[in-house]
Amino acid sequence: MSELISEFNSYREKMNKVILGKDNLVLKRLWNLDTNTYEDGALDKKTKEMLGLVASMVLRCDDCIRYHLGKCHELNVSTDELYEVFAVANIVGGTIVIPHTRRAAEYWEELENSNR
Amino acid sequence: MSELISEFNSYREKMNKVILGKDNLVLKRLWNLDTNTYEDGALDKKTKEMLGLVASMVLRCDDCIRYHLGKCHELNVSTDELYEVFAVANIVGGTIVIPHTRRAAEYWEELENSNR
Amino acid sequence: MSELISEFNSYREKMNKVILGKDNLVLKRLWNLDTNTYEDGALDKKTKEMLGLVASMVLRCDDCIRYHLGKCHELNVSTDELYEVFAVANIVGGTIVIPHTRRAAEYWEELENSNR
Amino acid sequence: MSELISEFNSYREKMNKVILGKDNLVLKRLWNLDTNTYEDGALDKKTKEMLGLVASMVLRCDDCIRYHLGKCHELNVSTDELYEVFAVANIVGGTIVIPHTRRAAEYWEELENSNR
Amino acid sequence: MSELISEFNSYREKMNKVILGKDNLVLKRLWNLDTNTYEDGALDKKTKEMLGLVASMVLRCDDCIRYHLGKCHELNVSTDELYEVFAVANIVGGTIVIPHTRRAAEYWEELENSNR
Amino acid sequence: MSELISEFNSYREKMNKVILGKDNLVLKRLWNLDTNTYEDGALDKKTKEMLGLVASMVLRCDDCIRYHLGKCHELNVSTDELYEVFAVANIVGGTIVIPHTRRAAEYWEELENSNR
Repeated sequence: MSELISEFNSYREKMNKVILGKDNLVLKRLWNLDTNTYEDGALDKKTKEMLGLVASMVLRCDDCIRYHLGKCHELNVSTDELYEVFAVANIVGGTIVIPHTRRAAEYWEELENSNR
Repeated sequence: MSELISEFNSYREKMNKVILGKDNLVLKRLWNLDTNTYEDGALDKKTKEMLGLVASMVLRCDDCIRYHLGKCHELNVSTDELYEVFAVANIVGGTIVIPHTRRAAEYWEELENSNR
Repeated sequence: MSELISEFNSYREKMNKVILGKDNLVLKRLWNLDTNTYEDGALDKKTKEMLGLVASMVLRCDDCIRYHLGKCHELNVSTDELYEVFAVANIVGGTIVIPHTRRAAEYWEELENSNR
Repeated sequence: MSELISEFNSYREKMNKVILGKDNLVLKRLWNLDTNTYEDGALDKKTKEMLGLVASMVLRCDDCIRYHLGKCHELNVSTDELYEVFAVANIVGGTIVIPHTRRAAEYWEELENSNR
Repeated sequence: MSELISEFNSYREKMNKVILGKDNLVLKRLWNLDTNTYEDGALDKKTKEMLGLVASMVLRCDDCIRYHLGKCHELNVSTDELYEVFAVANIVGGTIVIPHTRRAAEYWEELENSNR
Repeated sequence: MSELISEFNSYREKMNKVILGKDNLVLKRLWNLDTNTYEDGALDKKTKEMLGLVASMVLRCDDCIRYHLGKCHELNVSTDELYEVFAVANIVGGTIVIPHTRRAAEYWEELENSNR
């Protein structure tokens, strides 16, 4: 796995442990609910992860983008499909989404390369 | 058609005419591009309209939401599918999305009823 | 009760019924969690409602502001305290918060007058 | 003066009186500072009002947009210049700025017509 | 003091000096006003710093969050109280606040450890 | 050229190549349109770059800010003019713009020094 990916994952895990260790019930339940949101339902997981990705892009949250890129990759979203999600995000959210698109594109390349 | 829907559409058309009448090339091209964004490609129209909807919801733009709800309705998104889009928007964007979800739900009811 | 207040409450209730009637589990749970968030804990209800208010103001969600103003009023936040919350919101969020402050001030006057 | 313009101005004045009547020092000073910001300096008033307008558009604050449109009109911004400000706002902020552009275009037409 | 904390403070001081050295009156006054906003009044300092923190969290400004965490720490906000502020921010602002909550939790741990 | 400036430029170029290499038509056209937006028209380039800058500041996009700072520098915006743009951004967008103003000020110093 690339350094970019493994650093992101390990920081995420480390801090999740710290936060959940404080036993704040609202945060715990919200995080569980977050997991449920992306499970198969009337819409399949893949569609939902693309929804989560485009929402994270227009809100310009790089870590959220990375998380959903990882999931999209696991669920076999193709590069062409992904770039159409990027296109919707850039049209709806404007050129301020471009720098986040650059970092998303970089992370995607690493996900694709880590596969081989 | 319900009053809510027809008022939205007629104001939109009226003001688009005013704006496009000023011949600003950037605005004209952006609007054309906006239309292209949601055409069938690697992802189908229906998926793209749901992407446009969730992006509009987390950015809390009621008129954008209405526009994409109209398109989702034309493309036969089911009510269960729609509410899963709402769920992603509310989880990603938080409870500030709730008032926009109320107005979206109202507009969707009218779209559904206008069909019968 | 003033018309402004009663219209807000009745639209809210009507649409909540529509939305909850669709049985989307994520939305139901999020809304329950939202209620839990503002209960007495390490911080008291009054402080939490002021936190909810200032968050709603900087995110510029008029309906969220109204909801928390109603709660602040029930919990006996004074007008001087309220305006200090407004001040934090305007300093952190900038002058784009001013129009929302105007509508908040109007709603607060009606809450205060409905008491007498 | 058109109804749209006079209603906007009178609500603004009425609520400013209510808010300033509460004697919150931070709000008072912020509002004074807001006025100072747009005075002639290294940049002239007209440029500054266009800066205020584009900032209000990308932050999607309709009342702020109206306020700066009024000022731009007083300072003889031409319709072609104005639409170039609109273009920057739509490119930077994306298609979610379009509904606000429609309302801005409507208000501008009324300002232009109220002149004759 | 931890490196994270001291780097944050020294960059902040260095750049404040550069900015204030340019003698822009509006910026100077805004910064003074910012200081006044959090002084004891109808609400005490501690409540106001928690208001500033929750506002910074939902607006997702990491440096603002750090600043208010430092102040909350000085004013003896407990870890349980702090996590209830985090909970409000995450519920109101949604899961896009989570990555900022992780960085806030990390900074808080360092503030707590720097005390001993 | 300073390291800060050259790193920004080279990352930008590298990732633009990756993104444009995927041949997504919407992204390509949006980026062309972005370039057109800032060309001389009813408003001159310099005014438009300041509009792009203030919009990027209130939307708090550091990379967008850097891009427009580079252009403002090429077009001979003076430091006094620049700080008036900063002032508008801070008043409209509030104190959450301050950390971005610090990074903008740092980048501007490097642009000014790289000239000599």
